[in-house]
Amino acid sequence: MRIRKAVITAAAPAQRRLPLQNLINRDGVERSVIGILIDEIVRARVEEICVVICPGDAALYTSVLGDQAARVTFVEQREPRGYGHAIHCAEPFTAGEPFLHLVSDHLYVGPAGAGCATQLIEAAEAENCSISAVQATREGQLTSFGAVGGQRVSAAGSLYKIDTVLEKPTPTEAEQKIIVPGLRAGHYLCFFGMHVLTPGLQVILGELLAADPNARVTLSAALAELANRERYLALQMTDRRYDLGARYGLLNAQLAVALSGKDRGEILSSIVELLAVREPAEAGHAQ
Amino acid sequence: MRIRKAVITAAAPAQRRLPLQNLINRDGVERSVIGILIDEIVRARVEEICVVICPGDAALYTSVLGDQAARVTFVEQREPRGYGHAIHCAEPFTAGEPFLHLVSDHLYVGPAGAGCATQLIEAAEAENCSISAVQATREGQLTSFGAVGGQRVSAAGSLYKIDTVLEKPTPTEAEQKIIVPGLRAGHYLCFFGMHVLTPGLQVILGELLAADPNARVTLSAALAELANRERYLALQMTDRRYDLGARYGLLNAQLAVALSGKDRGEILSSIVELLAVREPAEAGHAQ
Repeated sequence: MRIRKAVITAAAPAQRRLPLQNLINRDGVERSVIGILIDEIVRARVEEICVVICPGDAALYTSVLGDQAARVTFVEQREPRGYGHAIHCAEPFTAGEPFLHLVSDHLYVGPAGAGCATQLIEAAEAENCSISAVQATREGQLTSFGAVGGQRVSAAGSLYKIDTVLEKPTPTEAEQKIIVPGLRAGHYLCFFGMHVLTPGLQVILGELLAADPNARVTLSAALAELANRERYLALQMTDRRYDLGARYGLLNAQLAVALSGKDRGEILSSIVELLAVREPAEAGHAQ
Repeated sequence: MRIRKAVITAAAPAQRRLPLQNLINRDGVERSVIGILIDEIVRARVEEICVVICPGDAALYTSVLGDQAARVTFVEQREPRGYGHAIHCAEPFTAGEPFLHLVSDHLYVGPAGAGCATQLIEAAEAENCSISAVQATREGQLTSFGAVGGQRVSAAGSLYKIDTVLEKPTPTEAEQKIIVPGLRAGHYLCFFGMHVLTPGLQVILGELLAADPNARVTLSAALAELANRERYLALQMTDRRYDLGARYGLLNAQLAVALSGKDRGEILSSIVELLAVREPAEAGHAQ
């Protein structure tokens, strides 16, 4: 299968402004967060992008996208029915095709070379199935993520066949249900905010949403069912993910991007200079 | 005199988005840049604030201001007639009163205690005249700033009586006209992006704008004339100013704010962690 489409979710009320913030990318060019994500998607040979937004936000997003806007379709999430619902709002756009899905409040920073989206799409096209980016995550952070259990596909690789998906499991639940052989003790495979999803996932989301018209639907619930119906893999990534919604999330992401890019030297100098500033100020406002 | 009003200029097309970006203030609270500036102004006991914006930007600004919006009046600059013109657009708001003026694309970070705006207003109220915040600046940076020449008011103080104002002087011009006794060699007093201005300044701006209806008018031109007509002082500040429009301006400002505030330890830890990340990635994607 070939992945031509991508869906970015940006409709969570608490995070709708994050993708509009500006950062400087690793090439030293100023870009909105959504623009950096779209650059990564386009490098992965995706042709059409749908951004799921809060009602009324289209003009704001268009205003920061510039030339990129031509590739983007906006879809509004009109009811607060959860993350799974946001993805299902893009169903008329995905229209029976597999698609890349990214959240809009994380950035992915890895060594130069193929980006996270490219690696994930190449794996999905080769394996011809849904595949989620995951990262080995300490037990203490399980409460923030969806997590998966399964078996390594081949002894040396970073692909896993998923049989269980849990949304924000407790450590006890995780220990009973999703220990993955070969990971460091106390570590679990947690979602990374990036997936390639087959049309079957949209079908399942539609079923879950129809089953209880008042319920909120998580992506994890649909992925758990997907693992029952289809071959579903996880790809363990070594790229770092930065949650922009965390405290100092934008600062840490900007530092990570800049330190991994062409301006590393300049940023290191700035840090040293800023650390040096403080003493005179404390010593009595000396100039 | 008592300073009850402030005018923030945010109408320069290249910089109109900067004040809307979010940073975390020194108390660890997320705030837009314009919000951080308004917090500083309100701490300095200013009651009414006017923000001069590009036509159509009022809704954007209101959306980030929250509770602060109640104190703010917006005025649109409808013609691109320069920085002096932007300030004069607020003349119906200042309405014959003295006012604090700030640019919206700089942040001021100093040792804890009275902020830059408070220091400047206290000095202006005590001296009963216009007063500009200035900083000793190396000759090589003169091309970016307005600069002033004058004499120290008292031997030990940081107040200067201004007799000359030059907009972005050449080093030769500066050496001939604005050497200030007592400053380090090769240093000049340059504007800091913050002023307390008397009604006389708005009168002068009105005259300059009327004299040539097609000309752009700088603030420096009006301040040069102000020095001829009124007592006009400069207050040398030790706070650091961060130009948000510079490359990595937001990053440097956020680092400076955070390192001067309650989260210094947390930020230092992040920096150390980010610097440590790089080696494994370079050594071949080891997890």
